[in-house]
Amino acid sequence: MNLSSKLLENAVFAISSLPGIGKKSALRLALHLLQSSEDEVVSFVEAIIHMKEKIKFCKKCHHISDEDLCSICSSIKRDQSTVCVVEQIKDVMAIENTQHFNGLYHVLGGVIAPVDGVGPQDLHIDSLVKRIEEGEIKELIMALSPTIEGDTTIFYIAKQIKDHPVKMSTLSRGISFGGELEYADELTLGRSILSRVPYHKDE
Amino acid sequence: MNLSSKLLENAVFAISSLPGIGKKSALRLALHLLQSSEDEVVSFVEAIIHMKEKIKFCKKCHHISDEDLCSICSSIKRDQSTVCVVEQIKDVMAIENTQHFNGLYHVLGGVIAPVDGVGPQDLHIDSLVKRIEEGEIKELIMALSPTIEGDTTIFYIAKQIKDHPVKMSTLSRGISFGGELEYADELTLGRSILSRVPYHKDE
Repeated sequence: MNLSSKLLENAVFAISSLPGIGKKSALRLALHLLQSSEDEVVSFVEAIIHMKEKIKFCKKCHHISDEDLCSICSSIKRDQSTVCVVEQIKDVMAIENTQHFNGLYHVLGGVIAPVDGVGPQDLHIDSLVKRIEEGEIKELIMALSPTIEGDTTIFYIAKQIKDHPVKMSTLSRGISFGGELEYADELTLGRSILSRVPYHKDE
Repeated sequence: MNLSSKLLENAVFAISSLPGIGKKSALRLALHLLQSSEDEVVSFVEAIIHMKEKIKFCKKCHHISDEDLCSICSSIKRDQSTVCVVEQIKDVMAIENTQHFNGLYHVLGGVIAPVDGVGPQDLHIDSLVKRIEEGEIKELIMALSPTIEGDTTIFYIAKQIKDHPVKMSTLSRGISFGGELEYADELTLGRSILSRVPYHKDE
C-alpha cells in the first residue's frame, strides 16, 4: 500500500499494531485523526498517556484502581471471605457484569505457561498466598481459563496453600446457556454428559 | 459499564470516539495499551502526534504529502493534462489502487452540502479553477459520490469553468462487476438499463 507519506505510514503501522485492527482499518482511523481538529487529537492522545502514567493497581488484588485500594476491595458491602482468582483485569469486569459475585478478586496477571516463559514468579501468586495466610479468606473460586495452563496454575496454587483451611472451587464447565448442542465442541459436550447433574423434580 | 477507574474510563471514551469502534472494542484496546510497555505506548502516541503535526498537504492537489508537492504531482511519469477530482484523500488512494489512472488529482475536501453547512468556499474549488486557468489541463474526471451533493458540486464546478476548453467526464454508473442483478438496488438497475451500452460483436 503506497500512502505517499512516511508520516502517515508510521501512524498506520502504529495503529495496526493494536489487536484486531488490520491495515485497512488503521488507515481509516489515521485519516480520521488527520482530519480531526488538533484539540481533538491532543485530547485523544492525552487520555491514553494519562491512563498509562497515572493508573494504579490495587495493592491487595492487583485490579486497576485510581487509589491504593480498588473500589471493590475497599467496599464494606463485599464479602471479604470469598476471593475469585482471575487471570486478567478484563475477567474482573466480565464477572462484575454478571452481578452474580459479591466477594473480592485476585488478579494473577496470567497463568503458568512454561512454553511462553511464564513461571509462578511472574504472576501475583505470592501475594495471594500472603492474603490467605492473613486468615480472612474462607473460599477461593478459581476462575481461570479452561486450559491445561489454567489447570496447572490451579494445581500449583492448591499445593502452595494446602496447609490452610481454605475451600477451593472452580467454575462449572459444560454447555453454554442458550447454545445449541449441535454447535458445542465434542470435548465440552462429552464432558458435560460425564459431569451431568441430578434433576430435582420439585424445583 | 463500571470500569473502577476514571483514567481508564477517559481513555475508553477517547478511543470509542474513533469511527467504527464501540465501547467494548475501546475497552479491549485501552486494556491492551495498559498492558503494553511504556516504550510501546510512547511510540504509538508519537506516531500519531508526528503525523498530525508534520504532515503537509500538496500545494497543487491537496493530497497528503511529506513535501510541498506530493509524489503524484511531482512525478514526470504522470499525465499532467488529465485531472481526477475527488472528495477525500482516501479516494485518491482507492483510485491509485486500481492502477487504471495515470493523471493527476485534485482533492476538494468534500462536496457542496448546504444541509451540513458546506458551501463552495469551504472546498478547494478556487485552486482547481486556478489550475485550469493555467491552461495545462485538458480533461477533468469528476470522481465524486453518486449523490445529489456530488451532482450539485459537479454542476457548480462546470459553471465556474464554462469559458475554458476543458473536457469534463464523470465515472460511469451501473451495476458492479461480479455483482448479482438480484442484489443491485432498483435505482442503479433501472438506470443501468436506460444507459445501456451497445455490444460490439466483433470485440
